[in-house]
Amino acid sequence: MSCVTPDEYTCVISREEVIDFCVRCMEKVSVCPSHSKSLANVLVAGDYRGHYSHGLNRLEMYVVDIEKGVCVYNKEPVIVKETVSTALVNGENLLGPVVGNFAMKIAIEKARSTGIGWVAANGSNHYGIAGWYSLMAAKEGLIGLSFTNTSPLVYPTRSKGRAMGTNPLTVAAPSSKPGDEFVLDMATSAVALGKLEMCRRRGLSIPDGWAADENGKSTDDPAVGINKGALMPLGGSEHTSGYKGYGLGMVVELFCGILSGAQYGSNIRQWMKTERPANLGQGFVAIDPNAFGSGFGERLSDYMRMMRELPRVDDSEPVLVPGDPERRHMAECDAIGGIPYPPVLIESMASLEDVILVQSILFEK
Amino acid sequence: MSCVTPDEYTCVISREEVIDFCVRCMEKVSVCPSHSKSLANVLVAGDYRGHYSHGLNRLEMYVVDIEKGVCVYNKEPVIVKETVSTALVNGENLLGPVVGNFAMKIAIEKARSTGIGWVAANGSNHYGIAGWYSLMAAKEGLIGLSFTNTSPLVYPTRSKGRAMGTNPLTVAAPSSKPGDEFVLDMATSAVALGKLEMCRRRGLSIPDGWAADENGKSTDDPAVGINKGALMPLGGSEHTSGYKGYGLGMVVELFCGILSGAQYGSNIRQWMKTERPANLGQGFVAIDPNAFGSGFGERLSDYMRMMRELPRVDDSEPVLVPGDPERRHMAECDAIGGIPYPPVLIESMASLEDVILVQSILFEK
Repeated sequence: MSCVTPDEYTCVISREEVIDFCVRCMEKVSVCPSHSKSLANVLVAGDYRGHYSHGLNRLEMYVVDIEKGVCVYNKEPVIVKETVSTALVNGENLLGPVVGNFAMKIAIEKARSTGIGWVAANGSNHYGIAGWYSLMAAKEGLIGLSFTNTSPLVYPTRSKGRAMGTNPLTVAAPSSKPGDEFVLDMATSAVALGKLEMCRRRGLSIPDGWAADENGKSTDDPAVGINKGALMPLGGSEHTSGYKGYGLGMVVELFCGILSGAQYGSNIRQWMKTERPANLGQGFVAIDPNAFGSGFGERLSDYMRMMRELPRVDDSEPVLVPGDPERRHMAECDAIGGIPYPPVLIESMASLEDVILVQSILFEK
Repeated sequence: MSCVTPDEYTCVISREEVIDFCVRCMEKVSVCPSHSKSLANVLVAGDYRGHYSHGLNRLEMYVVDIEKGVCVYNKEPVIVKETVSTALVNGENLLGPVVGNFAMKIAIEKARSTGIGWVAANGSNHYGIAGWYSLMAAKEGLIGLSFTNTSPLVYPTRSKGRAMGTNPLTVAAPSSKPGDEFVLDMATSAVALGKLEMCRRRGLSIPDGWAADENGKSTDDPAVGINKGALMPLGGSEHTSGYKGYGLGMVVELFCGILSGAQYGSNIRQWMKTERPANLGQGFVAIDPNAFGSGFGERLSDYMRMMRELPRVDDSEPVLVPGDPERRHMAECDAIGGIPYPPVLIESMASLEDVILVQSILFEK
């Protein structure tokens, strides 16, 4: 793992090297090459797209899940029930990306045949960035959607009980220009936990509507939101329409735990606790735009152009469409020849590999 | 039209009377009984559910659309293209509820046969409350979704150009208890235009994040938002994640104008302008939960119970789930024997009927 430093605080590592590293770590805890590769690809895509909270820094969590046996590595997901356009998948408690790739491939096949495929999976685990799965469809010329429920970290409107996850949703669609996909990939909470953690590390206060204290009141202290309170739904407080973000979070749960028969709501295990399998629910949808009005890609490109060319509030801040911030980050990575990481993460990864190596030698004895 | 007044400012009118009145008005401008009834049912459902901005007060708009010939009354929608699970519908510029009922019935039939039906419609018009269509599916034991694009009234994040509608989305699903459906029915803007109008009438300022002025900056003056500026997306400003509401509004457009080949974005005609047909795009989805994990209704009921029983921030404010505010309003209507209306609306409706009557007599000559 070579460490190029364009400035003294940054290590730049090629995507291939990061993928190899993740694969090596997973294989050391007995995961087969194909499952290891599935996880590695999604984690590195997270970092490459600028969603660092769902990348290499989560590798240890997956390693621990396998080591402790709360996550399974020696099976394959199975189709429990299906129609020409739908399927219910049992993820068999495998790594989330293994389940997600399996389920989205089914959705894509069904969309090719009937115009739409809707797949719900239970028995799954953390699957990395949701956008990975919607993009799988978009790269095949289809509209892709995905949803996952997650550990409870959000207060539903009017409550002071952590009963809802950040429950992300993603929609991706191909425009007429390759690489210029529409990619919305968002938590239904105002922000993800990672944003609070970042503000806490930097000693910054947070805006009204991001998080609440233990009494359910909005707080400007990220540490309070993380330790005593909770995240708030998109929209923040009730008077700024936080009940809509709460409703959207419930819709994600409806398409995940409720539809698939997995865990749901506050029944989902606590964040970073591994006393029992996660049994997350996830949804995967592919839609063939050719089953509807012809010229979809051209219209989408024109619509994205229409938004980007709007008069700006601030001339220095271009109007973006979903997918643009990620494209910018990927272009930056390409220009510097890899993904920039903070050295502290790279150090902790190196020690992770050493620890796994020692444990794996002990285990073999 | 009898006028009972539980307090001096309110007329209470039975649903049947309101429906009859709407039908009478539409028939006078030559709309056939079945199309008139379709519109009347949706408008009255809007009022009954407490969404007064999409009820009787909009009747005149539909009357004018027919009178001016910008909306057609003597055709039926047609299926342009279909698979076992999808359809593209041409709404033939008919009244929105005629198109919506037609399209959602197709989605329901397809869901019964293949587990899912996804229908996109172009050539449509304002279709009333979106929740009417998702509930059509929920009442048949299915999950229902609907989307519609609308006239541009919202600033996309970082812009000061009205380029996006309030683009509502709705998801409804049947729990195990009849009448206790999950019904999310929301604009993807922070609030709908009607909320700004209400605050302006009452001389109230509005919270940060509801609307922006002509420079794209958040304003507390509802009149500025209505006349010079625009609504803001759900989430408000960029730092409180308004880009997510903007992204969701684009997703609705993707499933409406872009997928169906109708108008989209800032190409949609201005609000209340009728110089050309609206050619709105709409989406209708039905999903059979029995195609997935069994026990959907029980899980959904338990999930809704879980939310309602959470510890409250304020003991006097119960934690609600989507559909509860509407259920409360409907129970109030049932208790007083009809829908409460402000007398000023009833007076303007009476004069609307007179005007139509005069015009219809002139027209017959």
